[in-house]
Amino acid sequence: MQIPARADFTLPGESGYEQLTLELARRWGADVIRDSDGTHLSPEIISAGYRVYSTICIIRQHNDFAAMHPDAQQQTFLSSDPVTAVSDSLIIHPLDGYFTEQFELNDSADALEYWQVWDRTANAVVSRENWSCHDGLVEIRNCTPFHRYTVSFLCWRIWEEINMYNHTTNNWTSEHLRQLDPRHPLAWEYLKGWLENWCIENPDTNVVRLTSLFYNFVWIFGDDMRRRSRFVDWASYDFTVSPAALRAFEAEYGYALTAEDFIHQGKLQATHRPPTPAKRDYMKFIQRFVADKARELVNIIHAHGKQAYVFYDDSWVGMEPYGPYFTSIGFDGLIKCVFSGFECRLCAGVDVPTHELRFHPYLFPVGLGGLPTFMEGGHPEKDALDYWLHVRRALARQCVDRIGLGGYLHLTEKFPAFVDTITEMSDQFRAIKALHAEGAPAVLPITIGVVHTWGSLRSWTLSGHFHETNTHVLIHVLEALAGFPVNVRFLSFEDVLNGGLHGIDILINAGQACDAWSGGNAWLNPALVSEITRFVYQGGHFIGIEEPSAVPGLDTGFALAHLLGVDMDTGDYACHMPWQFETAAAPFDIPETAVGQKSNIRLMSPETQVWAESDGIPQFTCSRFGSGTAVYMSTFSYSPAHAHMFLSLLLALTGQTQEAAGTADNSAVETAWFPESSTLLIMNNADAPMSTRITCPTGCFPVDLSPLETRFLHV
Amino acid sequence: MQIPARADFTLPGESGYEQLTLELARRWGADVIRDSDGTHLSPEIISAGYRVYSTICIIRQHNDFAAMHPDAQQQTFLSSDPVTAVSDSLIIHPLDGYFTEQFELNDSADALEYWQVWDRTANAVVSRENWSCHDGLVEIRNCTPFHRYTVSFLCWRIWEEINMYNHTTNNWTSEHLRQLDPRHPLAWEYLKGWLENWCIENPDTNVVRLTSLFYNFVWIFGDDMRRRSRFVDWASYDFTVSPAALRAFEAEYGYALTAEDFIHQGKLQATHRPPTPAKRDYMKFIQRFVADKARELVNIIHAHGKQAYVFYDDSWVGMEPYGPYFTSIGFDGLIKCVFSGFECRLCAGVDVPTHELRFHPYLFPVGLGGLPTFMEGGHPEKDALDYWLHVRRALARQCVDRIGLGGYLHLTEKFPAFVDTITEMSDQFRAIKALHAEGAPAVLPITIGVVHTWGSLRSWTLSGHFHETNTHVLIHVLEALAGFPVNVRFLSFEDVLNGGLHGIDILINAGQACDAWSGGNAWLNPALVSEITRFVYQGGHFIGIEEPSAVPGLDTGFALAHLLGVDMDTGDYACHMPWQFETAAAPFDIPETAVGQKSNIRLMSPETQVWAESDGIPQFTCSRFGSGTAVYMSTFSYSPAHAHMFLSLLLALTGQTQEAAGTADNSAVETAWFPESSTLLIMNNADAPMSTRITCPTGCFPVDLSPLETRFLHV
Repeated sequence: MQIPARADFTLPGESGYEQLTLELARRWGADVIRDSDGTHLSPEIISAGYRVYSTICIIRQHNDFAAMHPDAQQQTFLSSDPVTAVSDSLIIHPLDGYFTEQFELNDSADALEYWQVWDRTANAVVSRENWSCHDGLVEIRNCTPFHRYTVSFLCWRIWEEINMYNHTTNNWTSEHLRQLDPRHPLAWEYLKGWLENWCIENPDTNVVRLTSLFYNFVWIFGDDMRRRSRFVDWASYDFTVSPAALRAFEAEYGYALTAEDFIHQGKLQATHRPPTPAKRDYMKFIQRFVADKARELVNIIHAHGKQAYVFYDDSWVGMEPYGPYFTSIGFDGLIKCVFSGFECRLCAGVDVPTHELRFHPYLFPVGLGGLPTFMEGGHPEKDALDYWLHVRRALARQCVDRIGLGGYLHLTEKFPAFVDTITEMSDQFRAIKALHAEGAPAVLPITIGVVHTWGSLRSWTLSGHFHETNTHVLIHVLEALAGFPVNVRFLSFEDVLNGGLHGIDILINAGQACDAWSGGNAWLNPALVSEITRFVYQGGHFIGIEEPSAVPGLDTGFALAHLLGVDMDTGDYACHMPWQFETAAAPFDIPETAVGQKSNIRLMSPETQVWAESDGIPQFTCSRFGSGTAVYMSTFSYSPAHAHMFLSLLLALTGQTQEAAGTADNSAVETAWFPESSTLLIMNNADAPMSTRITCPTGCFPVDLSPLETRFLHV
Repeated sequence: MQIPARADFTLPGESGYEQLTLELARRWGADVIRDSDGTHLSPEIISAGYRVYSTICIIRQHNDFAAMHPDAQQQTFLSSDPVTAVSDSLIIHPLDGYFTEQFELNDSADALEYWQVWDRTANAVVSRENWSCHDGLVEIRNCTPFHRYTVSFLCWRIWEEINMYNHTTNNWTSEHLRQLDPRHPLAWEYLKGWLENWCIENPDTNVVRLTSLFYNFVWIFGDDMRRRSRFVDWASYDFTVSPAALRAFEAEYGYALTAEDFIHQGKLQATHRPPTPAKRDYMKFIQRFVADKARELVNIIHAHGKQAYVFYDDSWVGMEPYGPYFTSIGFDGLIKCVFSGFECRLCAGVDVPTHELRFHPYLFPVGLGGLPTFMEGGHPEKDALDYWLHVRRALARQCVDRIGLGGYLHLTEKFPAFVDTITEMSDQFRAIKALHAEGAPAVLPITIGVVHTWGSLRSWTLSGHFHETNTHVLIHVLEALAGFPVNVRFLSFEDVLNGGLHGIDILINAGQACDAWSGGNAWLNPALVSEITRFVYQGGHFIGIEEPSAVPGLDTGFALAHLLGVDMDTGDYACHMPWQFETAAAPFDIPETAVGQKSNIRLMSPETQVWAESDGIPQFTCSRFGSGTAVYMSTFSYSPAHAHMFLSLLLALTGQTQEAAGTADNSAVETAWFPESSTLLIMNNADAPMSTRITCPTGCFPVDLSPLETRFLHV
């Protein structure tokens, strides 16, 4: 197996540190040097013979234009915090509690048209003649005393959120960057001209690295440091809105959206919640707009002989790579920053020529979680290894084309262990990539369907990184699946109704009652319930985790309680006595730490096998129905040992063994079997030496591994 | 203080144990001897000079009549367990899974009219032409494959439930007793005649002790010993139903009830759940019927110069003593069996001439929980003391007229410690009663309102005994309140809307989301929310416990989140960041064991004081609104120490101190101050010696108490 010495690595260069840049390029085997947000590449770096990526945040670098055309800035709807009337009139300052360096009221005539005042106690909109807006406040008349009122209003977003984050987290002091809305005709013409000009002025750039497109994920700051970040949703659409967008939507869809379609009783419409039909329409409307505009930018870049890569983070809203319009944009590459295995699979599976991972940690003093990284108290080499452990097992299943880093390169000077770690890691990446090039790894004949509200649009993701969504059980499931030798498909409930279960061996539904992942009201459709009932009866398997298929209004708490053999009690069973039971041995080991503590689960049938219980409550159960099986797990959290158990469950359900794809009898060790090259990729997921027996189609043998080792074993 | 040596005690006599009966009557100071279910009084006992109670279960002792008139037996609706169709036809055996010694199908023509078949997957009733009933089974045609079907059917109840309980728990082997429905005209004439005759034949009986009236609480047995008891609700109305009742209801109310009004998707309508409007109508309909019939029985008893007492347990349905018709019946006494303080208050507060408590344990080999009592392994004296500790503090607040026991007296022979305990306890009861007779105990100027769906109808109770309802937080609150020197009122939500908060200092709402105690949909009424908002703004206080005012559909999880300053997250806050907080000192001690572990509570305002948290989640908070206060507690469980804390909370909210009613600085000790007799009743709730300082209006002094001591201290 030949590993190119210098390839497939993107290094963040830094002006003023030319020697360091070239030295690390050599050590890490870089073939590309990039700039980052806040750094520049000097002519000396640019002319050193490397390909060059240049980072552009297209909507952010134009404060002069924004100052001349403040109405070209981006906007959002916000809701004031509720205020209780204690008489028949009330004054509300809409922005009270919000960070006024981020937001500024838009009380222009065309914006006011969309403002609303709500009586939240009565859940009713207040008629327009009962309120007025002046001097930045709203005066409400004829209130009902002791009702709570809110104002839904449009405001300008006067500080680009990533710049705001860098200022507030990394103590930047430069000018606050503003952001332009590409929907504003003047701004759009300006931006296209600016890009055209930029391409002319940067002849050495090979790849324009767009970071990302137009609309940032939703990030709403408050004025109180005890809740600086009020709302964060990495996949919501609130920051795309404007009166112009609302008018265009109405013209196209024939109905008007109101502030309430966004504000939603002040809850907003987070990605974790099932969307309203209007939100679905609006998302498609924005997705088409984003794709159309992005295509124009890509065309400009291509016309200058450059490639266009997109960084799928930050201003990613509307350009979901598994959405219907992404490929029409014509990007040459997709770059995804990764902490986790599922993000690797997300990137690797996209229909785009080049897939690149930007590893963490970012070369910044402080990490995303606010903890020190490249500063005193930080251990960036440990962080890097921790992320690598998650990514490695996913790369073993489906590789990407390139990897890289970002940030301030000079910060690595005080962290030589980090430099060594990246050296090692990039070599391992290149070896894994070379292995894939000789032939794909073996996959078991098991196809998993993951069903939730969003289906394939949110393949291999919920909304953001693992640490932002780790209270949602599905992200743990995705992280486990990312390293398994099985096929995985993402299905929406509509897909299931349209024959999507064909070819699926095991269907998984995992989430909290009424969230987007569990499904909520989708389960009120009897056709969905009966289709999955048919699927299991005819030999399919179903795994429900936490509160699968839970929705109020049915005769059972779980719509699939009849399959699962357990149900969730939200109070309806207060006088219904539970079945007594004894636990039965599961066909695989269940680590104690994998057993949940959910208190409101109850057996529906004495035929249900209880594989694990906690305080007398079933937590992990198995129920036969017809020729199929339904398994209930009250929880799942990702760890190598829990993932091993989960894979054992998939094997037990399908009657498969893992030998064809390579197997280790030590749950800390994972393998991938590459039949074409007759090579086993063996990964020790533990930070300790491990011994294990490995079985693959060509034999069975013992292996001793050093901590975290990646072993390439030709057998 | 003069304590009558023999008074106010009802002893269960037993034929064959005449000497024991008279000896224990002497030791326990009995003035009344009674029979019990399964025992008789011999002429020697009856003529011994004691007053005599005779127990009658009016509907149960008539198997010959039932055999001749099987259509006079009582009935109920049941639902078959759901069966999934796997083709377009299906056969269901309705009674599968039920105890066929308790139930027998009623497929007579007038019953079948009320049967229904449901497609529970589609939540739709199956039209009559698609099913037929023959040979005890139901055949369904034109099914939708993979939908689940149920049959709602009427059946005869062929074994009176208390008799069934005694057979299955205490191994009785006598004939199964049946029960008659007083709505059946022949049966009713027969029952009246039987009672008339009974009164003539039992001239020595002074008090007819009805146990209780007509309809047992709902107790549905299954055929599988792993779930022998399928459903138990001590206050539901299912066992009152019959085609005749349904026709009479329709004639009176102008609309027809269906099986689904009872079956309710198979969930039935438990007392712990908010009732449908139809259920409310039906309850009133039954209450009037029960009162009318009971009045006729009482008139017969009175006509024979006897008194009529009613035992408020077992067949109590429809005769709630706080209901609108109870006093119209004309009972001379109410007897309540008690394990707990709240049951003592329930009895003591009823508008009836004589209030009597029947203490536990019942003189049976096995207790209600299935554990040994008067048999090897049992410790009846400990059980008795445990219950007495709960009852004593309630008696200190509001006394009853009499106490007593029930069951097989001879079982006490092997338990001399029990005999001693009852001797001591009955003397203490008489002393407490004598103290009350000299003047009422001091009460603080604090009036508590407890608001829930049922209001005063279920004053001082939920549905049955403490151990049957102890997963409901409100029963713990009631048990605490039962011994406090405060006024307590029970309010329905309608009462609140009709000015019921007038005179209330502290309003309590305690329960689980959408149960009858929390209130569920009642909170969707903005008038309710704004009335309580007004109440607090103007200086009232609100205590919300567990999931107070929780209902889906509002902008907050708790309808009163704006008052409480905390909210419950059922998923809507997935992307909303929480407020950071530090805990603040509460104005009283909070025992660690009193702090909940609820994981889905979040601060709504940084002004909310967090008095206790668990894993970073607020559990006990205090929020000011206007002139009032709202307190949130994620849990409350009754214990002397927790009750002490709860009383401290009531004092802190109202700015009161407890001295006027007597106070101990040791939380294991409670006191009641009787100003007229200048006497302190001091109760040590701990099974250990305790020292405390006592403060009462006449001074402050130290007291040393022996374990569990009751001290009467004239000061």
